[in-house]
Amino acid sequence: MSLSSLATPCLILDHGKHANNIARTQATADRLGVNLRPHLKTMKSAKAAHGLIAAGAKGITVSTLKEAAYFLLNGITDITYAVGIVPAKLAEAASLMDKGCDLKILCDNKDVAKTIADIANKTDCAFRILIEIDCGDQRGGLQPDSPDLIDIAKLIDASTAILEGVITHAGHSYGAKTIDAIVQISNEERIAVTAAADFVRAAGINVNTVSMGSTPTVLFANDVTGITELRAGIYTLFDIDQQSRGICQMTDIAVSVLTSVISHNRAAGKILIDAGGLALSKDRGAEKDHPHAGHGQVCDANGIAIEGLNVQSASQEHGHIKVRSDADFDAYPLGSHLRVMPIHACMMAAAYPHFNVIKDGELYGIWERVNGW
Amino acid sequence: MSLSSLATPCLILDHGKHANNIARTQATADRLGVNLRPHLKTMKSAKAAHGLIAAGAKGITVSTLKEAAYFLLNGITDITYAVGIVPAKLAEAASLMDKGCDLKILCDNKDVAKTIADIANKTDCAFRILIEIDCGDQRGGLQPDSPDLIDIAKLIDASTAILEGVITHAGHSYGAKTIDAIVQISNEERIAVTAAADFVRAAGINVNTVSMGSTPTVLFANDVTGITELRAGIYTLFDIDQQSRGICQMTDIAVSVLTSVISHNRAAGKILIDAGGLALSKDRGAEKDHPHAGHGQVCDANGIAIEGLNVQSASQEHGHIKVRSDADFDAYPLGSHLRVMPIHACMMAAAYPHFNVIKDGELYGIWERVNGW
Repeated sequence: MSLSSLATPCLILDHGKHANNIARTQATADRLGVNLRPHLKTMKSAKAAHGLIAAGAKGITVSTLKEAAYFLLNGITDITYAVGIVPAKLAEAASLMDKGCDLKILCDNKDVAKTIADIANKTDCAFRILIEIDCGDQRGGLQPDSPDLIDIAKLIDASTAILEGVITHAGHSYGAKTIDAIVQISNEERIAVTAAADFVRAAGINVNTVSMGSTPTVLFANDVTGITELRAGIYTLFDIDQQSRGICQMTDIAVSVLTSVISHNRAAGKILIDAGGLALSKDRGAEKDHPHAGHGQVCDANGIAIEGLNVQSASQEHGHIKVRSDADFDAYPLGSHLRVMPIHACMMAAAYPHFNVIKDGELYGIWERVNGW
Repeated sequence: MSLSSLATPCLILDHGKHANNIARTQATADRLGVNLRPHLKTMKSAKAAHGLIAAGAKGITVSTLKEAAYFLLNGITDITYAVGIVPAKLAEAASLMDKGCDLKILCDNKDVAKTIADIANKTDCAFRILIEIDCGDQRGGLQPDSPDLIDIAKLIDASTAILEGVITHAGHSYGAKTIDAIVQISNEERIAVTAAADFVRAAGINVNTVSMGSTPTVLFANDVTGITELRAGIYTLFDIDQQSRGICQMTDIAVSVLTSVISHNRAAGKILIDAGGLALSKDRGAEKDHPHAGHGQVCDANGIAIEGLNVQSASQEHGHIKVRSDADFDAYPLGSHLRVMPIHACMMAAAYPHFNVIKDGELYGIWERVNGW
C-alpha cells in the first residue's frame, strides 16, 4: 500500500529515522554506562515501546495512568509514572500493581506522602515512591536540600510503601540556546538529584534509583556519576524545536503529518492545507529561535523539507502556507500531498489514534497510540 | 453523582450557560430574520446538535467529513462541510449522500470544479456546491469579483452537480479589537458574499444560498440584506479569547477543564495542576490582548474565575500557575480541584472524548464528541 492512498490529515512515522534516533540515544546511555528508561509520552505506542526495549531500554516512563494501564496490557511491567501523584489516583495505581505492574509513582509533598503511607499501611500496598526534585525547571519537585525531602523519605520508609529513590527532569534544557548551555544544565540536573540522594542517604534511608533526564541533557551528558537511569522521550521522533537548537538535524525528524492542498488563495499569496491547529497543534515553541517556524516545516510528499515553506498560521482545519512565488502554486496543485514536520512532536502526535509507519517509502504498518486520560 | 468524583483532567460543560449562549445567538438570527446554521466544529456532539436544532437552527455546519458521517448517523441530514473539498474526498462525500445526507461541499478552484463536474456526470451524483469567497480572512476562497467564480459556477451548473450558492467566513473578526471593528467586518463579510452572489446571478446562474458568519460577525451583525443563512460555532461555548474582546462575559463561558492540584513548588511560587498542554491546548491566542492570559483562566471547583490566577505555561501534562501569594498554597492544597476556562474552546475540547455535562452543580449527563479525521 502506498502513502498516496492515505486519507489526510494523518500521522506518518518514518521507521528508519525512528530506529536511528533510538540507536543514537541508546548508544549514548550505553557509552555513559547507565540505564535508559524512555518516556513513552511521545510515542504512546506499544509497538514503539517493544522496539525501545529490544534496543536496550530498561523499563519505561509514562505521563498518564492510562498509558501505564495500556502498556501493562501490552506486556510491559516496569513503569515509572512521572507526574506527581494525588490521593485520588492512588486506587488506580494500586489496581495496576495488583495486575502485575511494577509501578513507580512520584511525590513531592508531605501531606500526600502521609496519605500514601496511611493507605499503604491500611491496604498492605507497597507503593514505590520516587521523590521529585526540582533541578531548575521550576515545575514539580522539592529543592535538593529541602527538609521536606527527609520528612517524606521518613514517612514512606516507616510505612508499607517503599522509598525507591529520587527523580528530576531538566525541562528547562528545552530553552537552552547552545550545546554548552545544555551541557551545563545536564550537570546541574545531575548535581541536584545526586545531592538529594545523598541528603536522604545521610538520614539513614536507602536510595536505589537516582533518575534524571530530558532529551537534550541525556544526549549531551558528559558525566553521570551517581545517576542510575536516564529518561528522555522526544528523541524517538525529534522536531523543529529540537532541530532549531542543534539537538538533531532536520533529516532526523521521524514524524510528520501527511496533508492535502485544499486551496490556492492567489490574492493572498497562500496555499491552504487540510492540516490546521488540531492536526499540527498550536505549539509555537520554536518561534523564540526561529521567527518563521510557525506551526511546522512544510515538506514534499516524500518528507523532504522545502526551504522557506512553513505553516505560518493555523485555524482549526486549515494550515496557511505563504508561497515564496507563484511557482509554488504550480508545484503544489489542489489535491496534491505535502507533509508537515512538527514544532513539538508530542503535541502534534497526540491528535492521532495511530502512526502510519513507512519503511522505504511504503506503508509498513499501523502503530496504535494511547491518547487522553 | 457529583463533580468531585470525576477523574482529572476532564471536560466540563455547564448546561445552563450553554443553553443561554444558544438562546442568545438564535435570538439574534431570529431578530435579523435569517436562518442560523451552527458550526459543530466546536461541540462535535450529537446531543449538542439536537439541542441547537430544537432551539431553531436550520441545518448544521461541520469541519470534517468524519463529523458529517457521525451527525448523519445521529439523524441529522442537512449538513454543510465548510472546508474546501479535494478530489480524493469526493468518494466519501458521495457515500454520505447515498446514505441520505443532504451534503453541501465547498469549492474555490476551477480544476477541482472540473473534476467534480466530471465525476458528477459519470456517476450521476448531484454534488451540491457552495463556492467559497474570501471576504478578507485570507484563508480559502476567491475574491468576490474573480472571473474564476463564474467559470466554476458554469462548470457546475452545466453538470449533474448543483450550484447551491456562495459562502464566506470572516475569521479575521477574531482579531478585531473593538465591537465597532466587528460591525465593520460583519458588513464587509455581507458585502463580499452578496456581491459574489450577484456576480454569479448576472451570469444567468441561480444562487440559492448566500452564507456568511463567524461568532463575532453574527452576534454584532446589523444588516443581513441578501444573506440567507448565518454560521457560527464558538458561541455555543465561548472562551477567554472571545471574552477578552467583549464578545461575551466571563460568566458566559460554558466549558472548562476540571483539574487537580498536583504540586506546590514553593521555591518557584507555583501551583502545578494535572492539566497541561494536551489538556488545555497550546493556543495562546488571547495573549495579543491580555499578556497574562496564558493557557487559561483558573477558576475554583465551582467554575468561578479566580482573579489573577492563570495557567502561565504548560508542559505536556503540567499546567503552571504562578501564585499571587503564599495564601494560594493554603487555599488550593494538593489533590484539590480547580477548573480552567479555555483560551480557545474548540482547541481545548478536541482533546476529550466527551463532555461531562453539569446542571445545577450536579453531573447531568455525558455528551460524546467526535474528534479526529
